Amino acid sequence: MNQPVQIVGSPISPYVRKVLVCLERKKIAYEIDPIVPFFGNDEFSRLSPLRRIPVLIDERVALADSSVICQYLEDRQPEPAFYPRDVADRARARWLEEFADSRMGDVFIWRLFNQIAIRQRVWNEPPDQTVVKQALEVEIPSVLDYLEGELPADGFLFGDPGIADVSIACFFRNAAFARFQVDRSRWPRTAAFVARALALPEFQKLARIEDAMLRTPIPKQREALRELGLALMAKSYGSDAPRRGIMPI
Amino acid sequence: MNQPVQIVGSPISPYVRKVLVCLERKKIAYEIDPIVPFFGNDEFSRLSPLRRIPVLIDERVALADSSVICQYLEDRQPEPAFYPRDVADRARARWLEEFADSRMGDVFIWRLFNQIAIRQRVWNEPPDQTVVKQALEVEIPSVLDYLEGELPADGFLFGDPGIADVSIACFFRNAAFARFQVDRSRWPRTAAFVARALALPEFQKLARIEDAMLRTPIPKQREALRELGLALMAKSYGSDAPRRGIMPI
Repeated sequence: MNQPVQIVGSPISPYVRKVLVCLERKKIAYEIDPIVPFFGNDEFSRLSPLRRIPVLIDERVALADSSVICQYLEDRQPEPAFYPRDVADRARARWLEEFADSRMGDVFIWRLFNQIAIRQRVWNEPPDQTVVKQALEVEIPSVLDYLEGELPADGFLFGDPGIADVSIACFFRNAAFARFQVDRSRWPRTAAFVARALALPEFQKLARIEDAMLRTPIPKQREALRELGLALMAKSYGSDAPRRGIMPI
Repeated sequence: MNQPVQIVGSPISPYVRKVLVCLERKKIAYEIDPIVPFFGNDEFSRLSPLRRIPVLIDERVALADSSVICQYLEDRQPEPAFYPRDVADRARARWLEEFADSRMGDVFIWRLFNQIAIRQRVWNEPPDQTVVKQALEVEIPSVLDYLEGELPADGFLFGDPGIADVSIACFFRNAAFARFQVDRSRWPRTAAFVARALALPEFQKLARIEDAMLRTPIPKQREALRELGLALMAKSYGSDAPRRGIMPI
């Protein structure tokens, strides 16, 4: 287990970010191939049948789902723990991860970030303003109302920062890329939690990488990451042009 | 932990079925409230923020996601094991569960079973034949091609039947409700695996319950289940009429 693990997927993705934070907290070495899922080649489709990122590859497995990857990393190297020890807390943490990955993914990524940042950049299509308006006025407030009742006033959900905190916080980075900030007068607990989580050193380190990627056209991103000192995979699963097909959700 | 666990959700759902098979294999006593998600009342929305079934309630938790529930049951009562012991096998099993729950759920439930069986029954709307045709001709064959390369020629995926086998097999019950059968000349391994899995005593026991439910109008299903000897929850989270809103996916 001395080889770095390989991670296929752009750090702009909240799901890739979740796995990278997990790796950083466990101090597991990794290399990355920063592809956007739409730009995966045929070999990427074989590796990730649903064309999702991230994919983790090590000596024993190739896994194409961020929740499965984080649980595998916890099983492979239990310390420092990324999941609560208590059985009920662990279940509750996994539920909050699922809520984040499915519902927050739906509203923050597909209805907001994808509309505002991806459609134009990848497909050269304008955002659908009806979808964006519904997300901002109805769906995101409903998600924030739920989180406001779940998140702690101080610290993190189950002691040390772990899977639930990180899964939730990851989506607020992409929300910020789409210029969305939590209104702290309406959702004070959530706003404070997000600020606290994104100030963690793992998120701060990744933020520098993400910011560099956002400034860099897709074909030059590998080179930009190399200049930032991030270890890159020798091989890339990227293609030159985006392709439609199964949505990576 | 002597109280039966409570399961909210109709056994017609593949996700409820997965949890019930897990409970049966572990011989954990349960009571059920057999609601269809669209028929949940306000209290159900609080219990299951995404209005998904199943929900598991015990003395310590209320969990509203079938994957989280099965993993919790494994943590709460490890024997008999429902997940592989080996760390890499366990990760691979969780990936196959995720593939089933997301991709098979999408094509078998939302594009086939929902179109053919639910839209008419719950919403009084005819099926969208374009969606059904695309599912039968393109999407389902693609899923079966993938499974054909993954499933074993004999026995089950990782020794004893477990989370991956059960997650996959569950969807073929709903496919059968929509009169879909795997073509054994085209996908022989998958056809044989499905027959083997659905012949397990846990699936056989549940099949009798499911068949009774399919014959019974929704308002009379609780009574029908009581007559079959299934333990029912005293309280129901059902409402009298279906409601639209967040799709339970």
